[in-house]
Amino acid sequence: MVDRWRKLSSQRLLETPYFNLRSDALQLPDSAVKAPYYIIERADAAMVFPLTPSQEVVMVRQYRPAIEQVELGLPAGLLEPGEEPAAAARRELLEESGYGGGEWERLLKLSSSPGLKANWIHLFLARDTQRLADPSPDEHERIEVELVPIDSLMDKVLAGEIVSSSGVAAILLALRKVF
Amino acid sequence: MVDRWRKLSSQRLLETPYFNLRSDALQLPDSAVKAPYYIIERADAAMVFPLTPSQEVVMVRQYRPAIEQVELGLPAGLLEPGEEPAAAARRELLEESGYGGGEWERLLKLSSSPGLKANWIHLFLARDTQRLADPSPDEHERIEVELVPIDSLMDKVLAGEIVSSSGVAAILLALRKVF
Repeated sequence: MVDRWRKLSSQRLLETPYFNLRSDALQLPDSAVKAPYYIIERADAAMVFPLTPSQEVVMVRQYRPAIEQVELGLPAGLLEPGEEPAAAARRELLEESGYGGGEWERLLKLSSSPGLKANWIHLFLARDTQRLADPSPDEHERIEVELVPIDSLMDKVLAGEIVSSSGVAAILLALRKVF
Repeated sequence: MVDRWRKLSSQRLLETPYFNLRSDALQLPDSAVKAPYYIIERADAAMVFPLTPSQEVVMVRQYRPAIEQVELGLPAGLLEPGEEPAAAARRELLEESGYGGGEWERLLKLSSSPGLKANWIHLFLARDTQRLADPSPDEHERIEVELVPIDSLMDKVLAGEIVSSSGVAAILLALRKVF
Protein backbone atom coordinates (compact mmCIF):
# COMPACT_ATOMS: atom_id res chain seq x y z
CA MET A 1 0.00 0.00 0.00
CA VAL A 2 1.36 3.39 -1.03
CA ASP A 3 0.84 5.92 1.74
CA ARG A 4 1.17 9.66 2.10
CA TRP A 5 4.46 11.14 3.23
CA ARG A 6 4.67 13.34 6.31
CA LYS A 7 6.02 16.87 6.04
CA LEU A 8 8.71 17.40 8.69
CA SER A 9 9.62 20.94 7.71
CA SER A 10 9.16 23.40 4.88
CA GLN A 11 11.18 26.41 3.78
CA ARG A 12 10.19 29.13 1.30
CA LEU A 13 13.19 29.67 -0.97
CA LEU A 14 11.86 32.22 -3.44
CA GLU A 15 8.77 34.30 -4.13
CA THR A 16 7.90 35.69 -7.56
CA PRO A 17 4.67 37.17 -8.96
CA TYR A 18 4.22 33.94 -10.98
CA PHE A 19 5.20 31.16 -8.57
CA ASN A 20 6.94 30.43 -5.30
CA LEU A 21 9.56 27.81 -4.65
CA ARG A 22 9.74 25.83 -1.43
CA SER A 23 11.92 23.04 -0.10
CA ASP A 24 10.38 20.39 2.15
CA ALA A 25 11.81 17.63 4.31
CA LEU A 26 9.52 14.62 3.97
CA GLN A 27 9.26 11.43 5.99
CA LEU A 28 8.36 8.34 4.00
CA PRO A 29 6.03 5.69 5.50
CA ASP A 30 9.03 3.45 6.19
CA SER A 31 10.75 6.31 8.08
CA ALA A 32 13.30 7.18 5.40
CA VAL A 33 13.65 10.93 4.95
CA LYS A 34 13.66 12.72 1.59
CA ALA A 35 15.18 16.20 1.85
CA PRO A 36 15.24 18.52 0.12
CA TYR A 37 12.08 17.94 -1.93
CA TYR A 38 11.49 21.01 -4.11
CA ILE A 39 7.96 22.14 -4.92
CA ILE A 40 6.83 24.96 -7.21
CA GLU A 41 3.71 26.66 -5.85
CA ARG A 42 1.69 28.30 -8.60
CA ALA A 43 -1.92 29.47 -8.98
CA ASP A 44 -4.29 27.02 -10.62
CA ALA A 45 -4.86 27.50 -14.34
CA ALA A 46 -7.90 27.26 -16.60
CA MET A 47 -8.02 26.27 -20.28
CA VAL A 48 -10.89 26.12 -22.73
CA PHE A 49 -11.65 24.29 -25.98
CA PRO A 50 -13.89 26.94 -27.59
CA LEU A 51 -16.02 25.94 -30.57
CA THR A 52 -17.76 28.39 -32.87
CA PRO A 53 -21.20 27.66 -34.43
CA SER A 54 -19.38 26.72 -37.65
CA GLN A 55 -17.29 24.07 -35.84
CA GLU A 56 -14.05 25.97 -35.72
CA VAL A 57 -11.83 25.91 -32.63
CA VAL A 58 -10.65 29.31 -31.37
CA MET A 59 -6.92 28.91 -30.82
CA VAL A 60 -4.09 31.29 -30.04
CA ARG A 61 -0.56 31.54 -31.34
CA GLN A 62 2.09 33.07 -29.10
CA TYR A 63 5.83 32.92 -28.52
CA ARG A 64 6.88 30.79 -25.54
CA PRO A 65 10.31 31.78 -24.22
CA ALA A 66 10.74 28.61 -22.14
CA ILE A 67 10.59 26.30 -25.17
CA GLU A 68 11.87 28.98 -27.58
CA GLN A 69 9.13 28.50 -30.13
CA VAL A 70 5.79 29.91 -31.23
CA GLU A 71 3.02 27.77 -29.72
CA LEU A 72 -0.41 27.08 -31.19
CA GLY A 73 -2.65 26.32 -28.24
CA LEU A 74 -5.99 26.67 -26.52
CA PRO A 75 -6.79 29.89 -24.65
CA ALA A 76 -5.59 29.50 -21.05
CA GLY A 77 -4.19 31.35 -18.08
CA LEU A 78 -3.70 31.44 -14.35
CA LEU A 79 -6.59 32.07 -11.97
CA GLU A 80 -6.62 35.45 -10.26
CA PRO A 81 -6.89 35.45 -6.43
CA GLY A 82 -10.34 34.24 -5.41
CA GLU A 83 -11.41 33.54 -8.98
CA GLU A 84 -13.37 30.39 -9.90
CA PRO A 85 -11.89 28.19 -12.64
CA ALA A 86 -14.88 28.65 -14.97
CA ALA A 87 -14.74 32.43 -14.57
CA ALA A 88 -11.00 32.42 -15.27
CA ALA A 89 -11.51 30.34 -18.42
CA ARG A 90 -14.17 32.78 -19.69
CA ARG A 91 -11.96 35.77 -18.84
CA GLU A 92 -8.89 34.31 -20.57
CA LEU A 93 -10.91 33.37 -23.66
CA LEU A 94 -12.30 36.90 -23.94
CA GLU A 95 -8.95 38.60 -23.24
CA GLU A 96 -6.89 36.45 -25.58
CA SER A 97 -9.37 36.03 -28.46
CA GLY A 98 -12.38 38.32 -27.99
CA TYR A 99 -14.67 35.26 -28.00
CA GLY A 100 -17.25 34.42 -25.35
CA GLY A 101 -20.75 33.23 -24.63
CA GLY A 102 -21.98 29.75 -25.55
CA GLU A 103 -22.67 26.56 -23.64
CA TRP A 104 -19.94 25.52 -21.23
CA GLU A 105 -19.12 22.21 -19.58
CA ARG A 106 -16.30 21.06 -17.37
CA LEU A 107 -13.99 18.39 -18.80
CA LEU A 108 -11.39 17.46 -16.18
CA LYS A 109 -8.94 18.82 -13.65
CA LEU A 110 -5.34 17.77 -14.36
CA SER A 111 -1.85 18.27 -12.94
CA SER A 112 0.68 19.33 -15.57
CA SER A 113 3.73 18.35 -13.47
CA PRO A 114 2.71 16.17 -10.51
CA GLY A 115 6.37 15.62 -9.58
CA LEU A 116 7.19 19.30 -9.20
CA LYS A 117 4.26 21.75 -9.37
CA ALA A 118 1.54 22.10 -6.75
CA ASN A 119 -1.17 23.46 -9.03
CA TRP A 120 -4.05 22.17 -11.17
CA ILE A 121 -5.33 23.08 -14.59
CA HIS A 122 -9.10 23.07 -15.09
CA LEU A 123 -10.23 22.10 -18.59
CA PHE A 124 -13.49 23.26 -20.18
CA LEU A 125 -15.40 22.70 -23.40
CA ALA A 126 -17.43 25.67 -24.73
CA ARG A 127 -19.79 25.28 -27.71
CA ASP A 128 -21.31 28.09 -29.75
CA THR A 129 -18.87 30.77 -28.65
CA GLN A 130 -19.07 34.01 -30.63
CA ARG A 131 -16.73 36.89 -31.25
CA LEU A 132 -17.90 39.53 -28.76
CA ALA A 133 -15.08 42.06 -28.67
CA ASP A 134 -11.54 42.80 -29.76
CA PRO A 135 -8.90 40.80 -27.87
CA SER A 136 -7.39 42.63 -24.88
CA PRO A 137 -4.25 40.71 -23.94
CA ASP A 138 -2.08 41.47 -20.92
CA GLU A 139 0.71 44.02 -21.27
CA HIS A 140 3.37 41.52 -22.37
CA GLU A 141 1.16 39.11 -24.27
CA ARG A 142 1.46 39.15 -28.09
CA ILE A 143 -1.24 36.82 -29.35
CA GLU A 144 -2.60 35.91 -32.76
CA VAL A 145 -6.06 34.32 -32.94
CA GLU A 146 -6.47 31.39 -35.29
CA LEU A 147 -9.70 29.59 -36.12
CA VAL A 148 -8.92 25.92 -36.74
CA PRO A 149 -11.59 23.72 -38.38
CA ILE A 150 -12.35 20.94 -35.90
CA ASP A 151 -11.84 18.30 -38.61
CA SER A 152 -8.22 19.33 -39.07
CA LEU A 153 -7.32 19.50 -35.39
CA MET A 154 -6.28 15.87 -34.85
CA ASP A 155 -3.90 16.10 -37.80
CA LYS A 156 -2.27 19.12 -36.18
CA VAL A 157 -1.88 17.21 -32.90
CA LEU A 158 -0.33 14.19 -34.60
CA ALA A 159 1.99 16.43 -36.64
CA GLY A 160 3.38 17.90 -33.42
CA GLU A 161 1.97 21.37 -34.11
CA ILE A 162 0.24 21.52 -30.72
CA VAL A 163 2.75 20.86 -27.97
CA SER A 164 1.11 21.54 -24.59
CA SER A 165 0.39 18.34 -22.62
CA SER A 166 -2.72 19.86 -21.06
CA GLY A 167 -3.77 21.26 -24.43
CA VAL A 168 -3.48 17.89 -26.17
CA ALA A 169 -5.34 16.22 -23.30
CA ALA A 170 -8.10 18.86 -23.53
CA ILE A 171 -8.36 18.51 -27.31
CA LEU A 172 -8.64 14.72 -27.18
CA LEU A 173 -11.18 14.86 -24.34
CA ALA A 174 -13.23 17.50 -26.17
CA LEU A 175 -13.16 15.62 -29.48
CA ARG A 176 -14.58 12.55 -27.71
CA LYS A 177 -17.49 14.69 -26.46
CA VAL A 178 -18.19 16.48 -29.73
CA PHE A 179 -18.10 13.48 -32.10
CA MET B 1 2.62 37.61 -37.27
CA VAL B 2 3.87 36.34 -33.93
CA ASP B 3 7.67 36.45 -33.78
CA ARG B 4 10.33 35.17 -31.45
CA TRP B 5 11.52 37.34 -28.59
CA ARG B 6 15.18 38.29 -28.24
CA LYS B 7 17.07 37.39 -25.08
CA LEU B 8 18.84 40.50 -23.75
CA SER B 9 20.30 38.87 -20.67
CA SER B 10 19.97 35.76 -18.55
CA GLN B 11 20.78 35.06 -14.92
CA ARG B 12 20.99 31.69 -13.15
CA LEU B 13 19.13 32.10 -9.85
CA LEU B 14 19.27 28.57 -8.44
CA GLU B 15 20.72 25.16 -9.20
CA THR B 16 19.34 21.93 -7.80
CA PRO B 17 19.87 18.27 -8.77
CA TYR B 18 16.37 18.28 -10.28
CA PHE B 19 16.09 21.61 -12.08
CA ASN B 20 17.66 25.06 -12.42
CA LEU B 21 15.90 28.38 -12.29
CA ARG B 22 16.90 31.31 -14.45
CA SER B 23 15.61 34.81 -14.99
CA ASP B 24 15.76 36.35 -18.46
CA ALA B 25 15.25 39.86 -19.83
CA LEU B 26 13.43 39.53 -23.15
CA GLN B 27 12.82 42.02 -25.91
CA LEU B 28 9.51 41.65 -27.70
CA PRO B 29 9.30 42.21 -31.49
CA ASP B 30 7.74 45.65 -30.89
CA SER B 31 10.70 46.60 -28.62
CA ALA B 32 8.85 46.30 -25.32
CA VAL B 33 10.94 44.53 -22.68
CA LYS B 34 9.67 41.75 -20.41
CA ALA B 35 11.88 41.28 -17.35
CA PRO B 36 12.17 39.22 -15.33
CA TYR B 37 10.87 36.20 -17.24
CA TYR B 38 11.43 33.11 -15.07
CA ILE B 39 12.25 29.77 -16.68
CA ILE B 40 12.67 26.36 -15.05
CA GLU B 41 15.37 24.31 -16.78
CA ARG B 42 14.83 20.59 -16.30
CA ALA B 43 15.99 17.44 -18.10
CA ASP B 44 13.60 16.04 -20.68
CA ALA B 45 11.32 13.25 -19.50
CA ALA B 46 10.09 10.00 -21.04
CA MET B 47 6.79 8.23 -20.42
CA VAL B 48 5.45 4.92 -21.72
CA PHE B 49 2.03 3.35 -22.20
CA PRO B 50 3.03 -0.31 -21.70
CA LEU B 51 0.60 -3.01 -22.79
CA THR B 52 0.85 -6.66 -21.78
CA PRO B 53 -0.12 -9.51 -24.16
CA SER B 54 -3.41 -9.78 -22.24
CA GLN B 55 -4.25 -6.12 -22.95
CA GLU B 56 -3.49 -4.76 -19.51
CA VAL B 57 -1.70 -1.44 -19.03
CA VAL B 58 1.24 -1.48 -16.61
CA MET B 59 0.67 1.49 -14.33
CA VAL B 60 2.32 2.74 -11.15
CA ARG B 61 0.87 4.18 -7.97
CA GLN B 62 3.03 6.57 -5.95
CA TYR B 63 2.66 9.45 -3.52
CA ARG B 64 3.20 12.88 -5.08
CA PRO B 65 4.18 15.47 -2.47
CA ALA B 66 3.51 18.46 -4.77
CA ILE B 67 -0.19 17.62 -5.17
CA GLU B 68 -0.39 15.83 -1.81
CA GLN B 69 -2.05 12.70 -3.17
CA VAL B 70 -1.30 9.20 -4.38
CA GLU B 71 -1.13 9.26 -8.17
CA LEU B 72 -2.00 6.43 -10.55
CA GLY B 73 0.03 7.04 -13.67
CA LEU B 74 2.15 5.69 -16.50
CA PRO B 75 5.79 4.78 -15.84
CA ALA B 76 7.92 7.88 -16.48
CA GLY B 77 11.02 9.72 -15.41
CA LEU B 78 13.73 12.19 -16.33
CA LEU B 79 16.41 11.38 -18.89
CA GLU B 80 19.89 10.84 -17.52
CA PRO B 81 22.71 12.92 -19.07
CA GLY B 82 23.31 11.79 -22.66
CA GLU B 83 20.43 9.29 -22.57
CA GLU B 84 18.06 8.90 -25.54
CA PRO B 85 14.32 9.28 -24.80
CA ALA B 86 13.50 5.70 -25.88
CA ALA B 87 16.27 4.29 -23.68
CA ALA B 88 15.05 6.35 -20.73
CA ALA B 89 11.49 5.12 -21.20
CA ARG B 90 12.67 1.48 -21.26
CA ARG B 91 14.85 2.08 -18.18
CA GLU B 92 12.08 3.76 -16.21
CA LEU B 93 9.58 1.03 -17.14
CA LEU B 94 11.98 -1.67 -15.97
CA GLU B 95 13.00 0.16 -12.78
CA GLU B 96 9.49 1.13 -11.72
CA SER B 97 7.59 -2.01 -12.75
CA GLY B 98 10.01 -4.77 -13.74
CA TYR B 99 8.39 -4.90 -17.20
CA GLY B 100 10.22 -4.65 -20.52
CA GLY B 101 10.61 -5.99 -24.03
CA GLY B 102 7.87 -5.76 -26.64
CA GLU B 103 7.27 -3.61 -29.68
CA TRP B 104 7.81 0.11 -29.18
CA GLU B 105 6.68 3.14 -31.11
CA ARG B 106 6.99 6.85 -30.52
CA LEU B 107 3.75 8.77 -29.90
CA LEU B 108 4.56 12.47 -29.50
CA LYS B 109 6.85 14.96 -27.81
CA LEU B 110 4.95 17.40 -25.57
CA SER B 111 5.67 20.33 -23.26
CA SER B 112 4.00 19.97 -19.86
CA SER B 113 4.32 23.67 -18.96
CA PRO B 114 5.20 25.76 -22.03
CA GLY B 115 4.83 28.98 -20.03
CA LEU B 116 7.40 28.05 -17.41
CA LYS B 117 9.44 24.88 -18.03
CA ALA B 118 12.08 24.46 -20.72
CA ASN B 119 11.82 20.67 -21.08
CA TRP B 120 9.95 18.10 -23.17
CA ILE B 121 8.29 14.82 -22.36
CA HIS B 122 8.63 12.04 -24.93
CA LEU B 123 5.66 9.66 -25.09
CA PHE B 124 5.88 6.04 -26.20
CA LEU B 125 3.53 3.11 -26.77
CA ALA B 126 4.90 -0.38 -26.03
CA ARG B 127 2.94 -3.53 -26.93
CA ASP B 128 3.58 -7.05 -25.64
CA THR B 129 5.70 -6.01 -22.68
CA GLN B 130 6.45 -8.79 -20.21
CA ARG B 131 7.50 -8.94 -16.60
CA LEU B 132 11.25 -9.47 -16.76
CA ALA B 133 12.48 -8.69 -13.25
CA ASP B 134 11.54 -7.33 -9.87
CA PRO B 135 11.09 -3.55 -9.80
CA SER B 136 14.19 -1.64 -8.67
CA PRO B 137 13.01 1.88 -7.88
CA ASP B 138 15.31 4.76 -6.92
CA GLU B 139 16.23 5.22 -3.26
CA HIS B 140 13.29 7.49 -2.43
CA GLU B 141 10.70 6.01 -4.78
CA ARG B 142 7.91 3.95 -3.20
CA ILE B 143 5.95 2.49 -6.07
CA GLU B 144 3.13 -0.01 -6.40
CA VAL B 145 2.59 -1.67 -9.78
CA GLU B 146 -1.00 -1.98 -10.97
CA LEU B 147 -2.19 -3.80 -14.10
CA VAL B 148 -5.22 -1.95 -15.46
CA PRO B 149 -7.37 -3.66 -18.12
CA ILE B 150 -7.27 -1.43 -21.17
CA ASP B 151 -11.07 -1.47 -21.42
CA SER B 152 -11.40 0.20 -18.02
CA LEU B 153 -8.78 2.89 -18.57
CA MET B 154 -10.99 5.54 -20.14
CA ASP B 155 -13.43 5.27 -17.23
CA LYS B 156 -10.55 5.94 -14.85
CA VAL B 157 -9.50 9.00 -16.84
CA LEU B 158 -13.03 10.42 -16.90
CA ALA B 159 -13.46 9.71 -13.17
CA GLY B 160 -10.39 11.86 -12.43
CA GLU B 161 -8.34 8.89 -11.17
CA ILE B 162 -5.45 9.69 -13.54
CA VAL B 163 -4.36 13.30 -13.07
CA SER B 164 -1.17 13.89 -15.06
CA SER B 165 -1.73 16.05 -18.16
CA SER B 166 1.00 14.22 -20.07
CA GLY B 167 -0.33 10.89 -18.81
CA VAL B 168 -3.88 11.61 -19.97
CA ALA B 169 -2.56 12.83 -23.33
CA ALA B 170 -0.46 9.67 -23.71
CA ILE B 171 -3.39 7.42 -22.76
CA LEU B 172 -5.76 9.05 -25.24
CA LEU B 173 -3.14 8.97 -28.00
CA ALA B 174 -2.33 5.32 -27.29
CA LEU B 175 -5.99 4.27 -27.18
CA ARG B 176 -6.48 5.80 -30.64
CA LYS B 177 -3.63 3.63 -31.92
CA VAL B 178 -4.66 0.41 -30.22
CA PHE B 179 -8.38 0.42 -31.11
